Amino acid sequence: MISEFKLIEKIKKIIPPHLQCELGIGDDAAVLKIPFGEKLIMTTDSIVAGVDFHFEKKRMGFATAAQAGRKALAVNLSDLAAMGAKPLACVISLGIPPSMKESWILDFYRGFVQLAKEYKIRCAGGDLSRAKEFFASVTAIGSAKSPEIVMRSQAKPGDWIAVTGSLGGSLTGKHHAFKPRIQEARFLAQFFKPTAMIDISDGFLQDLGHILKSSHTGAALELSEIPISQSAMILAGKHPQKALERACTDGEDFELLFTVPASRRIKLEKAWEKHFSNVPLSWIGRITPRKWNIDWMFQNKKVLLPKFKRAGYQHF
Amino acid sequence: MISEFKLIEKIKKIIPPHLQCELGIGDDAAVLKIPFGEKLIMTTDSIVAGVDFHFEKKRMGFATAAQAGRKALAVNLSDLAAMGAKPLACVISLGIPPSMKESWILDFYRGFVQLAKEYKIRCAGGDLSRAKEFFASVTAIGSAKSPEIVMRSQAKPGDWIAVTGSLGGSLTGKHHAFKPRIQEARFLAQFFKPTAMIDISDGFLQDLGHILKSSHTGAALELSEIPISQSAMILAGKHPQKALERACTDGEDFELLFTVPASRRIKLEKAWEKHFSNVPLSWIGRITPRKWNIDWMFQNKKVLLPKFKRAGYQHF
Repeated sequence: MISEFKLIEKIKKIIPPHLQCELGIGDDAAVLKIPFGEKLIMTTDSIVAGVDFHFEKKRMGFATAAQAGRKALAVNLSDLAAMGAKPLACVISLGIPPSMKESWILDFYRGFVQLAKEYKIRCAGGDLSRAKEFFASVTAIGSAKSPEIVMRSQAKPGDWIAVTGSLGGSLTGKHHAFKPRIQEARFLAQFFKPTAMIDISDGFLQDLGHILKSSHTGAALELSEIPISQSAMILAGKHPQKALERACTDGEDFELLFTVPASRRIKLEKAWEKHFSNVPLSWIGRITPRKWNIDWMFQNKKVLLPKFKRAGYQHF
Repeated sequence: MISEFKLIEKIKKIIPPHLQCELGIGDDAAVLKIPFGEKLIMTTDSIVAGVDFHFEKKRMGFATAAQAGRKALAVNLSDLAAMGAKPLACVISLGIPPSMKESWILDFYRGFVQLAKEYKIRCAGGDLSRAKEFFASVTAIGSAKSPEIVMRSQAKPGDWIAVTGSLGGSLTGKHHAFKPRIQEARFLAQFFKPTAMIDISDGFLQDLGHILKSSHTGAALELSEIPISQSAMILAGKHPQKALERACTDGEDFELLFTVPASRRIKLEKAWEKHFSNVPLSWIGRITPRKWNIDWMFQNKKVLLPKFKRAGYQHF
């Protein structure tokens, strides 16, 4: 049986002082300053043991404690990125089964805090509850000047559609180790004002669908430009159609999907090369006026794809 | 099997437009304005089915869906109150078992939103996960001007200790129906600057202990002034010592416990009468220099109490 107050003391020691808040852990709530003139961006996401990751070493989706802790924060940072926000602070609520070892929880926190350090986000406190299964519910806040905030809803016909990194097969490893695209998103938000942006968590096509729905537009996608990951290729036994399907529908890529007016494409491409030469950027299609409709192109000619088995990831 | 996206659509309809945020539900994150010159206060708290409430009607701790939803927010509002903050916005992460009925979840939200309406706190979005057991993890943010923020750590010897309402036996009903003391706390924070304040969630003595620990002080308490609730009295079979023990150690009273310099007591008492005539205010003792030590007094004479069986509530 773990003692709550002793555990809190141990957790406190894991968090470096510069990531703690005014007051921070140990009062009823944390106190924070918001940068002058900026708006607050707020998001929340949970991970649940047995659903989002597994304790069993040999199982697909296995995560060490540190990987699970890292991921609990990473998914929230990815959401902040999608808005163009700078990370500010986070809180974490844990549900802890009575049988759980204290060392696991502390390792979980170490993974969480390690990522918090990398992204300089303050750990503003949290809450511990008893629960039958382990869960970690994180809320992250960030800030941005109004014009930097990127929504999903302003994509316009003619805009180019771009995606960072490569897609599909995240489950073989990337979904625990991905780097939230905060820097890349801030760069886009500040200098190239995407008309829409989202992080790919439910699967590329489904998340593109969210942009199209919010923006009341459609898209024409160039088959040969979809950046299929090595993992998707391997999982698909090198079968191109299956690999494409994975790239389009596998969840948890946590790449940025965004749209920009055609006039900004060339400049963006050049600047991207300079700043993020190690992060691929693919121009995969254009926004069309055909509401919610996706056309597939292959070498600029319209093609028909066989229907994919699933549209993307549903959380339950 | 519940469809995630349909459920989100239904949830959206429950939240009145004036409680939604800029962007709000349906983008990656919510966007909020913080009142000019104010600081942000952030807190998080979870409720877990089978721990914080029960589905079985005949069980102690049973909650309807609406009661559970109300409580998930109420505990967080109580934390904001303890800091002297005005509620601003909240997000909610739900863990939903596959067998759960959609109607239960919607009723849960109705209870949640009903309280959000009463306290004018915006519902900034949330997250739905699959889980074996139901949990709801809420993060609330509020704001306050710096001088209004009340910590736990500034209680000084000679300060009076006061408590709102009455204590103990919350489990018979109050723990689902309590009104977070936001108005009362704001009144205190703005006009009477408590030197320390906390909401009683772990039990009066334990939460007083948190103040004493943070403030490096002790307390002398007057036995006859502890406001024992009717429920505590009934649960104790009218046995005075047992009733006192309940008032001192039962969890989830969600009353305010605070300290003020003696010089402000009389004025505070008069103003309280005027504004909160229906909320009892009890002056239960004074802060002493004897670090972390609690002396009990009865009619101003020092007495020895038999040791209570438990110190207060531990969450696991």
